[in-house]
Amino acid sequence: MTTEEVLALDQVTFDERGLVPVIAQDAETGDVLMLAWANREALVRTLAERRMVYWSRSRGELWRKGDTSGHVQHLDELRIDCDADVVLARVHQVGAACHTGERTCFFRWLGERAAETRT
Amino acid sequence: MTTEEVLALDQVTFDERGLVPVIAQDAETGDVLMLAWANREALVRTLAERRMVYWSRSRGELWRKGDTSGHVQHLDELRIDCDADVVLARVHQVGAACHTGERTCFFRWLGERAAETRT
Repeated sequence: MTTEEVLALDQVTFDERGLVPVIAQDAETGDVLMLAWANREALVRTLAERRMVYWSRSRGELWRKGDTSGHVQHLDELRIDCDADVVLARVHQVGAACHTGERTCFFRWLGERAAETRT
Repeated sequence: MTTEEVLALDQVTFDERGLVPVIAQDAETGDVLMLAWANREALVRTLAERRMVYWSRSRGELWRKGDTSGHVQHLDELRIDCDADVVLARVHQVGAACHTGERTCFFRWLGERAAETRT
């Protein structure tokens, strides 16, 4: 990592668990693919490897997205919000982001379209 | 609300604080605007009023986005993710989503573009 990257990471505000939510957005289509969580090390590895690395809250370990499924997310750019407590990752998604096989995890509607399912 | 909407809300998994993260996305441009939090009542009001209502964690009260600033987010549609613990709201944003006056809260880069600021 560059000095600028280290300094930038120091600006991120992690919650009481040491985590920050990360929104993954398809850099090509603009579709929101998923939300996951990262700790500082996950962000360091993401920047170093240029692919998304999250923190799995259920497994309690680093999660290199795609290691098992092959559905790697290549990093285009990371952004932080005005409060520096949310990260937006623009990615080039290989295959499906969702473990269900859907391209995005947000394939179900709430509200008046709740009965429908995106195909 | 319709019966379908009530049933759909019952599918949402709230965290130990009774909250769920909500990603607001510009329905016209696809830009990710902000991430905020909602409790069940905030989602009920959002669906009833067709505009975004969040839960302000800092103030501990419902937050009808735009009541003070005028920067209302008119609801296009709500979606939930595969685990039903994240909400994606596609909205028509009036003015700026960010309290800084920026259109989106994600106007800063992390990583190799960290020195730049989106204009």
